[in-house]
Amino acid sequence: MSIFEKARELALIHSSASVLGWDQETYLPPGAEKYRADQLAWLSSRAHELATSDAWKKDLETAESADPGNDPKLTANLREMRREFDRATKLPVDLVARDSVASSLAKHAWADARERSDFSRFAPHLETLLGIAREKADLWGYENEPYDALLDGYERATSTAAVAQLFDQLKPSVREIASRAVENSASHAPALPLGPYPIAAQQRFNAKVAEAVGFDFQAGRIDTTTHPFCTTLGPCDIRLTTRYDEADFTSSLFGVLHEAGHGLYEQGLPADDFGLPSGTAVSLGIHESQSRLWENHVGRSRVFWEKWYPIAQEHFLPLKGFPLEKFLHYLWRAEFSPIRVEADEATYDLHILLRFQLERRMVNGSLPIADVPAAWNELFRELFGFPPKNDRDGCLQDIHWSMGGLGYFATYTLGNINSAQLFAAAKKDASVATAMEKADYLPLLSWLRKSVHAHGATLDPADLILQATGSLPSTDAYLTHIQSRYL
Amino acid sequence: MSIFEKARELALIHSSASVLGWDQETYLPPGAEKYRADQLAWLSSRAHELATSDAWKKDLETAESADPGNDPKLTANLREMRREFDRATKLPVDLVARDSVASSLAKHAWADARERSDFSRFAPHLETLLGIAREKADLWGYENEPYDALLDGYERATSTAAVAQLFDQLKPSVREIASRAVENSASHAPALPLGPYPIAAQQRFNAKVAEAVGFDFQAGRIDTTTHPFCTTLGPCDIRLTTRYDEADFTSSLFGVLHEAGHGLYEQGLPADDFGLPSGTAVSLGIHESQSRLWENHVGRSRVFWEKWYPIAQEHFLPLKGFPLEKFLHYLWRAEFSPIRVEADEATYDLHILLRFQLERRMVNGSLPIADVPAAWNELFRELFGFPPKNDRDGCLQDIHWSMGGLGYFATYTLGNINSAQLFAAAKKDASVATAMEKADYLPLLSWLRKSVHAHGATLDPADLILQATGSLPSTDAYLTHIQSRYL
Repeated sequence: MSIFEKARELALIHSSASVLGWDQETYLPPGAEKYRADQLAWLSSRAHELATSDAWKKDLETAESADPGNDPKLTANLREMRREFDRATKLPVDLVARDSVASSLAKHAWADARERSDFSRFAPHLETLLGIAREKADLWGYENEPYDALLDGYERATSTAAVAQLFDQLKPSVREIASRAVENSASHAPALPLGPYPIAAQQRFNAKVAEAVGFDFQAGRIDTTTHPFCTTLGPCDIRLTTRYDEADFTSSLFGVLHEAGHGLYEQGLPADDFGLPSGTAVSLGIHESQSRLWENHVGRSRVFWEKWYPIAQEHFLPLKGFPLEKFLHYLWRAEFSPIRVEADEATYDLHILLRFQLERRMVNGSLPIADVPAAWNELFRELFGFPPKNDRDGCLQDIHWSMGGLGYFATYTLGNINSAQLFAAAKKDASVATAMEKADYLPLLSWLRKSVHAHGATLDPADLILQATGSLPSTDAYLTHIQSRYL
Repeated sequence: MSIFEKARELALIHSSASVLGWDQETYLPPGAEKYRADQLAWLSSRAHELATSDAWKKDLETAESADPGNDPKLTANLREMRREFDRATKLPVDLVARDSVASSLAKHAWADARERSDFSRFAPHLETLLGIAREKADLWGYENEPYDALLDGYERATSTAAVAQLFDQLKPSVREIASRAVENSASHAPALPLGPYPIAAQQRFNAKVAEAVGFDFQAGRIDTTTHPFCTTLGPCDIRLTTRYDEADFTSSLFGVLHEAGHGLYEQGLPADDFGLPSGTAVSLGIHESQSRLWENHVGRSRVFWEKWYPIAQEHFLPLKGFPLEKFLHYLWRAEFSPIRVEADEATYDLHILLRFQLERRMVNGSLPIADVPAAWNELFRELFGFPPKNDRDGCLQDIHWSMGGLGYFATYTLGNINSAQLFAAAKKDASVATAMEKADYLPLLSWLRKSVHAHGATLDPADLILQATGSLPSTDAYLTHIQSRYL
């Protein structure tokens, strides 16, 4: 078997695990959790075994030395497979095992600590996970600071310093825009008319919207979970989920639009290259750009609702007589919430800036774990103007750290920045812009297919943005966007 | 790893494949079929590799020679693992591959032939599959006739001659009962009141019934498919499916009761032994006894409906004013249909007797493939009194042969025979009988748990029946049952 056949075999294992994981979140009977974890562990061992085997190494070396260098896709595929192989094999088996045990214990401890709003119950676990993260960073290697090596696992070929620079540019303006947006909103954001908005009607409406933006139901579906997500079970099998609130149909709809953005990216990757880097999404910051683009730039725009609001009114009786303008102000409301997952577009990035800054200090060693709650509260007050009322609403709110996911948060704001830059570039294409004025988004999707999806992971994220938009990642378009939406 | 650890690993693979197979039938997007087949093929290769490996053989031999012989469960587990290993390894790899290709081609050809009612399009495939089946029988070995070896794959430790003897006993009485039942039914079986019986109400009602007979929704669920089935995704994860007809709620209900019968057996197997013979169902004839018992002996009984009919009337408006007696006569209607899957309790076995007799002749070489349609029609006329109007409604109606499933059909009627014998024995237990008079079936379930489920595959089917009922498999109880139901 060549390394490419091996990579396709690895994809069979990973995607089979994704089927089991999807079922775990959607339909698994409660009593079946334990055995499902065993099934997933077996698949995950097989994947690890294969992807770190001597045979894999030998085949990769064979392919590398046979590369004639005249096919950029081939060269890019080999480069990325090398990167992944090195990252996977630099960690000794016992560290991987310690990591897995520590995360599993930490997840339970975190849930308990959050429930009681008692950081001390989580602190020793976070200490352990942080130690493991630093060990991993040392083994993976980094140029300037340990955080680089962690970030690289989610957003490759960037640096902590580069991200910090983008975030520093963002910070004053975002704070300013957020404050003014919250102030405006307090005075004139109306409430949505009283429901119920029946779930069946929401499902019909969401499916129509998802289909209209190009989501292919021959190669995907929408199910229901507590937390919306998108997962890929095969090259033509992209599953979205959302959750329903009978008091507010927009909750499930924006869940669908966000996840459909991820799903359109996955459906747009070259299916024949499934399992190879050229058939795989490049990074979380690019993935999130696709979800934010469809959720916010498309789904929260006036022109979108000029088309879809009358259709929503046909689906939902309570909207009768509630004017479009009021509905738009409802959509565009802004408010300072202590909770990231409840934050709106105007205030979301402040949550990320805070986490990025604290994580970086934790990983690089300048913030002791014991000081995390105080540092969180202080920085939160600086950014939002008030402190969270307890650690449950503060440094214990997110699951990420308990899963060892240090280095992940930055990709949310990178996604916002990228989404605006890509959307602005797409609109320079006259056919995209003209169609969008009529709420026809298929030319936009074609542009994204060509400029983003078709490349898979053959270009580094920054190069992808440069090639698609003509400039390196910059905060300009994003600031313009939130300014014009909120001020 | 010991052979028992290996067997548990094999169960992880098989049950993961069951998750993928369940999803394939329930929720898979249409475009994802091809890749799903690849994922399943990968899992199936791993399973085959493991279960036929030298390491497996060595570990099995080690365990066999270490068996002190003082633990009947251990000895039974080793005996059954040896039986399975020998069966799996007696077939050379190229035969398994040829079988898989031939079945795959045959399934398409059968669908096409059935559609056109043209046996000649299926005949060459059936010829090939029959040749492969005979090769397998020769490799597996048999005492009296090749059909023994095929039957053994579905119903172990019995013989074709023993089954034929049971079926011969059944034939004259079943024909007689069926004829009279059909005659009676024609004169006084009423129609169900005009629906619709909404699907949501059917789902609520079915779930209540399934729960009442003891199906554990913490370890299982019910979904919707074209053909009802039951599948095991883990020791505490048993999935049933059914299909809905808005004109007749009994269609989905009896689907659920039948599959819940299978599911109760699976839920009753020792969960700690999942993957070992002692945690596995023993045979199809015993499995089918559980489904038929709950579907027919419980679900079509007067006492069951004395309790559930008023509840059904609360769920389904059209039943208002339709008396219980008429409903029972609707349930007990009998009619000669050319199609097995549409047959009622009174006529079902005639379909099986026909198939068993023809299959046996085909496999043993006395019925050439070209003569199958004529032989089918002749025997059908002898049993039912009229010929099927074409091969689509005759020898092309079932999918089994196209999947190479020669030897399978007999287990349906063995299930009927076993179900009646077990039910009659259970009723001899006073606490079971008393509870059943009040439509309380939990003591019956406990009896089945203890007498059937708890043994897994440690006893041969006939010994299981002997131990549970006090006699070897016999047609007496079954004939008494259909006689008293229909005459």
